[in-house]
Amino acid sequence: MKNIFFTPGPAELYFTVGDHIKRALSEQIPSISHRSRQFEDIYREAATNLRLLLAIPDSFHVLFTGSATEIWERLIQNCVAEQSYHYVNGAFSRRFYETAELLHREALLQEAPDGSCASPMPDKIPNTTELIAFTQNETSTGAAQPLEDIYTIRQAHPDKLIAVDAVSTLPYPAIDYSQVDSVFFSVQKGFGLPAGLGVWVVNDRCVEKAQQLAQEGHSIGTYHSLPTLLAKARKNQTPETPNVLAIYLLAKVTGDMLTKGINQIRKETDYKASLLYHTLEEHPLLSPFVQDKKYRSKTVIVADSTSSPSDIISALKQAHVIIGSGYGNYRQQHIRIANFPTHSKEQVEVLVDRINAIK
Amino acid sequence: MKNIFFTPGPAELYFTVGDHIKRALSEQIPSISHRSRQFEDIYREAATNLRLLLAIPDSFHVLFTGSATEIWERLIQNCVAEQSYHYVNGAFSRRFYETAELLHREALLQEAPDGSCASPMPDKIPNTTELIAFTQNETSTGAAQPLEDIYTIRQAHPDKLIAVDAVSTLPYPAIDYSQVDSVFFSVQKGFGLPAGLGVWVVNDRCVEKAQQLAQEGHSIGTYHSLPTLLAKARKNQTPETPNVLAIYLLAKVTGDMLTKGINQIRKETDYKASLLYHTLEEHPLLSPFVQDKKYRSKTVIVADSTSSPSDIISALKQAHVIIGSGYGNYRQQHIRIANFPTHSKEQVEVLVDRINAIK
Repeated sequence: MKNIFFTPGPAELYFTVGDHIKRALSEQIPSISHRSRQFEDIYREAATNLRLLLAIPDSFHVLFTGSATEIWERLIQNCVAEQSYHYVNGAFSRRFYETAELLHREALLQEAPDGSCASPMPDKIPNTTELIAFTQNETSTGAAQPLEDIYTIRQAHPDKLIAVDAVSTLPYPAIDYSQVDSVFFSVQKGFGLPAGLGVWVVNDRCVEKAQQLAQEGHSIGTYHSLPTLLAKARKNQTPETPNVLAIYLLAKVTGDMLTKGINQIRKETDYKASLLYHTLEEHPLLSPFVQDKKYRSKTVIVADSTSSPSDIISALKQAHVIIGSGYGNYRQQHIRIANFPTHSKEQVEVLVDRINAIK
Repeated sequence: MKNIFFTPGPAELYFTVGDHIKRALSEQIPSISHRSRQFEDIYREAATNLRLLLAIPDSFHVLFTGSATEIWERLIQNCVAEQSYHYVNGAFSRRFYETAELLHREALLQEAPDGSCASPMPDKIPNTTELIAFTQNETSTGAAQPLEDIYTIRQAHPDKLIAVDAVSTLPYPAIDYSQVDSVFFSVQKGFGLPAGLGVWVVNDRCVEKAQQLAQEGHSIGTYHSLPTLLAKARKNQTPETPNVLAIYLLAKVTGDMLTKGINQIRKETDYKASLLYHTLEEHPLLSPFVQDKKYRSKTVIVADSTSSPSDIISALKQAHVIIGSGYGNYRQQHIRIANFPTHSKEQVEVLVDRINAIK
C-alpha cells in the first residue's frame, strides 16, 4: 500500500506526476537536446503556465537553477555589493542571512522568535541596504510573514530590492509582483515534483543591479549570473544542460493546476488549513506552535506536542500517513504537516481522523 | 516507433532507466526526505558503485552538484586563489578557462587547434599555477587528451592540483586517480541518465586547498563550497535538497554496469569506435574530423562532411536514428555520434549500415 506524504519537503508528488513521467519516457524527453526547438517549447510552456497561474507580470523573467538554496547564493552575488537586510525567524531565513555573510557581504538582520514574524519596522533598515530578504514561509516553524508586511517595506523603501523566499508556500500566496523584485521556490514542495529544480522569478531591476555590479568589477558568478541566465532565457534555454525532465513536469503540472484553477486551489488550501489548525487546537496532546493566528502558515502547519513526536509519527506511519518531524532542535517537540495542492480534502480529513485517534 | 539517440549530450537513456524510474515511482522515492536513512542508503549505493566501477580510491570523495558546468565554477572558487592553467582545444575547454576569468582569476591557457590536443609541455606551466585543467574529452570536436599526457604533467608538477573534465567520456577511461585530484562528469552522457546532476570526484588535497583559501579570507562559495559539500557527504547527504531521483538512478545504473563489467563495457566501446571510425574513413562523403588517431575520442566521434550535415541528419532521422549536429560554427560542416555504454553493438551496426546507405 502506498503512503501519503504530508512531509513539508520532498513531499507527496502532485497526483498527475506519475502519468506525466510515463509520457515523458515514451516521448523520450530525457534524450532531447537542450538546444532544440522541442526543449524551447517545454521551457516556454512551463514559464507561460507559471505566469498565468501566479499572475506574474511580463516584466518578470522565469529562470531555472538547481535548487532554491542556489538562488540564495545567486541573489546575493548578483544583487548585493555591500549590504543586505534579512528578516530572520527560523533556520531557513537564517541560512539565507548566513549565505550573505559567507559571500563577505555585510548582512544585517531583524530577528523574531521562532514561530513568530518580525513586524516590518521600516525605519530600522539603513539607507545603505541594497536588498531586503523575506522568507515568506519559514518551513522550520510554520510561521508565515503576511504579504502586507512586505508591501509596507516596499512603500517605505521603494529604491531597494525586495527578495521573497516562497519555497514551501507557492502556488498558494497571491503575491503582488509589482511590490517585489525576486520571488523564488523549489519544485518539490507545493508543486509536487521530484526535487532538483529551483525557479527564480526576477525583474529587470535585479538584472540591472547585476549588470552594474559587473561593470564596477564585482564577480557576479559565471554560468548562473543573472545576465547569463537571462540571455539564455530569452531563447527559452538555460546556460547549462538543465534538469529537462523537471522543467517538463513543471510545465505539465502547472497546466493541470490551471485546469483546476488557482482560486479553487487557494480555497481548498484555506479549508484544509482551517481543519488542521482546528484539529490541533482541540487535541489533548497537540497545539499549534505559531500562537499568533496572523502568522500561521497555510501550507506548513507545525504543532507542539506534549507527547513524544516520534510516537505520533510512528502511529500515523502504521496507517501509511507520513508527516514531518520537527526541524533541528524541535525534533523532540514538534510535528510538521504539509498542506499542498496535491493533498485532497478527503486525504486531509483522513489525516485529521488519524490524528484525533491519537490520545 | 522510438528513436535511438546517438547524440553526445542529453543522450539515449541507459536501457534499464525506464524500469528503474517506474520502480522509483512505485517506491515513492521522490517523496522521501533527503535527511532520511533511506536517502543516505541511496547516496551510499551510488557512491560505492561508482568507486567500484571506476576504481576510485578511498582517498577520494563523491559529491553531487546540479551540473558539470557548476563544477567548473566550484573548482575555481575552491581551489584557485590567483592562477589556473587550462589546456584549451574547443568550446567546452574554453568555457572552463573562461569560468576562471569570470571569477577574476588569472587564467593561462595552452591552445591546440580544434580536433587536436596540445602536447603536455610541462615547462610552459609557471610555478605560480595552482590548478591545471584538462578537458579529457572535448565534446565539441571529438578530440580526447591521452591520459598519459595528464600523467606527464603530474610527474613534472606534483605540487599542483590537476582537474579532469571527463564529462562525455566516463565510465570509459581507466583513469589512474592517484595522478589527478579532481575528476567530474554529468550523468546525461555516458551514464545514460536524465540530465540534472553533476558528479564531482575529489581528493583531500582539493579540500585542504579550499580550507586554506577560506582561512586566508577568500570566499569559496556557500552551500556548495568543498568543505560544506564534504561535511554532508560524510553523512551521505547533500547541503541542499538534491536531485534525489537522479542519484537513485545513478545508483541503479552503476549497479547494472557493474553486473555487465567495466572491462566488457570498455571492450565494446573500443569495438564500436573502431567500427564507426572505419566507416567514416571508407565513406565517400564523410571522414574523421580528428586526424591524429591518438587524439580520437572513443565516445564522441566527429565527422567532417563534404555533403550537407543537415541532410545526413534528416536522412538518419527518417530511420529513427538521431545523431548530433556539429557544435557551434561546425554546424554546417560536422556530424557528431555518441558511442556510450547504452549503445549496443547491434545498434551501432545498424547505424553504420544507415550511414553507408548515404551516398
